[in-house]
Amino acid sequence: MSKDRVVIVGGDAAGMSAASKIRREQPEREILVLERTDFTSYSACGMPYFIGGLVENVDHLVARSPETFRDKYNIDVRTGHEVIAIDPERQQVAIRTREDEEVSEPYDQLLIATGACPFCPDVPGSHSRGIFGLSTLSSGIRVHQFLAEEKPRTAVVVGGGYIGLEMAEALIRKGLNVSLVQHGPEVMGTLDPDMGALVSQALREAEVTLYLSETMTGFETRDGRVTAVVTDRRTLPADVVILGMGVRPNSELAAAAGLDLGVKNGILVDDRMRTSASNIWAAGDCVATVHRLSGEPTYIALGTVANKQGLVAGTNLAGGEARFPGVVGTAVSKICRVEVARAGLQEKELKKLDFEYATATITAKTRAGYFPGSGKVTVKMLGEKGSGRLLGAQIVGLEGSAKRIDTVATALTAGMTVEDVIDLDLSYAPPFSPVWDPVQTAARQLVKQL
Amino acid sequence: MSKDRVVIVGGDAAGMSAASKIRREQPEREILVLERTDFTSYSACGMPYFIGGLVENVDHLVARSPETFRDKYNIDVRTGHEVIAIDPERQQVAIRTREDEEVSEPYDQLLIATGACPFCPDVPGSHSRGIFGLSTLSSGIRVHQFLAEEKPRTAVVVGGGYIGLEMAEALIRKGLNVSLVQHGPEVMGTLDPDMGALVSQALREAEVTLYLSETMTGFETRDGRVTAVVTDRRTLPADVVILGMGVRPNSELAAAAGLDLGVKNGILVDDRMRTSASNIWAAGDCVATVHRLSGEPTYIALGTVANKQGLVAGTNLAGGEARFPGVVGTAVSKICRVEVARAGLQEKELKKLDFEYATATITAKTRAGYFPGSGKVTVKMLGEKGSGRLLGAQIVGLEGSAKRIDTVATALTAGMTVEDVIDLDLSYAPPFSPVWDPVQTAARQLVKQL
Repeated sequence: MSKDRVVIVGGDAAGMSAASKIRREQPEREILVLERTDFTSYSACGMPYFIGGLVENVDHLVARSPETFRDKYNIDVRTGHEVIAIDPERQQVAIRTREDEEVSEPYDQLLIATGACPFCPDVPGSHSRGIFGLSTLSSGIRVHQFLAEEKPRTAVVVGGGYIGLEMAEALIRKGLNVSLVQHGPEVMGTLDPDMGALVSQALREAEVTLYLSETMTGFETRDGRVTAVVTDRRTLPADVVILGMGVRPNSELAAAAGLDLGVKNGILVDDRMRTSASNIWAAGDCVATVHRLSGEPTYIALGTVANKQGLVAGTNLAGGEARFPGVVGTAVSKICRVEVARAGLQEKELKKLDFEYATATITAKTRAGYFPGSGKVTVKMLGEKGSGRLLGAQIVGLEGSAKRIDTVATALTAGMTVEDVIDLDLSYAPPFSPVWDPVQTAARQLVKQL
Repeated sequence: MSKDRVVIVGGDAAGMSAASKIRREQPEREILVLERTDFTSYSACGMPYFIGGLVENVDHLVARSPETFRDKYNIDVRTGHEVIAIDPERQQVAIRTREDEEVSEPYDQLLIATGACPFCPDVPGSHSRGIFGLSTLSSGIRVHQFLAEEKPRTAVVVGGGYIGLEMAEALIRKGLNVSLVQHGPEVMGTLDPDMGALVSQALREAEVTLYLSETMTGFETRDGRVTAVVTDRRTLPADVVILGMGVRPNSELAAAAGLDLGVKNGILVDDRMRTSASNIWAAGDCVATVHRLSGEPTYIALGTVANKQGLVAGTNLAGGEARFPGVVGTAVSKICRVEVARAGLQEKELKKLDFEYATATITAKTRAGYFPGSGKVTVKMLGEKGSGRLLGAQIVGLEGSAKRIDTVATALTAGMTVEDVIDLDLSYAPPFSPVWDPVQTAARQLVKQL
């Protein structure tokens, strides 16, 4: 039996997608999942909405509990089990249990799905109470609890990426005074600054105080508790601090086991999600992946990618054949009333890769101009000079804006030209769109410059 | 000067898109537009919302008035000018003016953009007062006026296509008792009946009384005014009747001039929008087009297509080079709370074309399940057995459902397989989607059967 044993380290998106896929394909396969927290298959992306009070019960963020996996899927999920070492030679993992015991478990095939953790520079005071990053569901619960119990009044969010902005909104919603410190010239560094400026503006309208082009250098504390965020330009009082400076892959286990790491220390995997050791696989936020447009390695920690990679790993672990083709850099978010989306490569990436490119930015309406609820949407599109190839787009706008990025993501995947985008038979009716979809209006503007 | 004169018959989407494009490319070109109504560049698709009271002023439906075209674009737009004959040999058109005068105008290049008109079988009473079809903006204004002045209480809509359903909603909104007679087994015959049934149900919930699988055979009238719709099974009292039985191309002028007609009597054009006469072009609802999936000729009257074809015709008329690649059958509509979308080929089309296909239907949520406002969405996807090629999809669901069809339209255009759709890097965040977009969930289900 144990000859075929799959052990999975980590029980969220990638790990449990893989486990579920293996179970569907191999009803008898022995599957052991080791999860250090109490939760499986939860929506990490939902935590800001739980913290902000839009989602009342944290259980709603859990798609399937450990009990469900055990009882309905016959998957041996052990929570409170943290894997502390992998021994590829003996094919076993060392585990520290909730009771602080050390045990080991053998594997025939191992899947590492350890996720990522919030990045924090090693600055004075960074381990103080009241400073939170969001990664596991437990981390979200800790923030929720802190807000409820300590009733902080002033919050500083450090970092203006997706999580930082979603948390800024959540804290505003909870009635706190919220400031946000961002290293770059505008929030949302995955957008070009001209588009990021629109998001900065939306945050200001939501009464978030922005400190842009400013770098956090440390924290002031009292009795082990944060009292202020220190930047290169000022000191901002803070009862609570949220770190939104990006995440880094939890790849230490893999590295210590001698597995190769890739870009940004993500675990290096092939397109079947196999690591440099033939019976060890990895998937989700802990691995490096490939950008389909540039062919370059990239690191993107997103739930969609983790789910897809888990499915691919699970298929291969079950004896099938599946490949993960990489990403095109798609991401969306909603910040207060404003929807934000991007796909493809942004200007700074294109410059680094020596693309000859042009851009066009248009404003249009989300619905027919005369239709109730029609709002403004801005689309910036990027294309390659000469070939005319579509390289990316960024969208900022009101309700109904963001999901249009899927057209761009699909067109990018197909290698379409900007001209091809104009020809697309996209849907139109007054409640949904102007007669030319804003994405096509941008393409019509851009094509003149290619 | 007149050597280069372009005459355009019809001043709505296709005609004015072409005129505008020519003007942008050729600031001095002589452009004459002959429009039989009083309006140019209006949103025909917006009429149900004007009639239903969602759009207050009919002027809001007009993107650009004849005066704007004359004053700002130097385009000679003559309203109240109906072209009654084309003489290809003499290169002139015969016109009847609003004052009932007959005049003629010469052309060097002619663009026919005469649109379409509501189909009505030649049954007893079909020309009675109180029976309306929707085509021109004037026709919409007549319905609006009739409702305001005559205060009808009981309406019958004949035909359950997009216009029929949107008008049923508009009339419900105006407080009328509304029945709808549909020849087919469910409304929305451009969907497969299993998906159409979901729309039928939404209409019933909106208190529209449906008479399905029933055929209108005539009208009862009194003093030249409609009093009832007669079907093959009953007589339905009616103070007002809306025809939503589809449209037919206004191609009589072209046919009388000896031009070739294509499928469903749409004017036959090549992909540059040129008719069988070398200096006569045609675009919009009056022409036949090509389905990109089947390569077969098709007739689709939609504003998006008309605008694109107008742009292509205008580019070519201005000496450029543009081609219209055809459609993939994309369409969306909103009926009360329910959004409806389709793209590609439906089952009856696939059968006719002898495709070996499979289908899968899934239900999912429009947002993360736990996110406020998350609603049900049903996606049916169709794919080719063997090749695995995506053939189409149909979507019925609550807010946020319909525009997902653009992913399908783009994937169809790219010739993607269903497997490719699963691999797409579509956007995800809890306010917008489950972690697997419903379109991908359908693809995951379908791929097992291909």
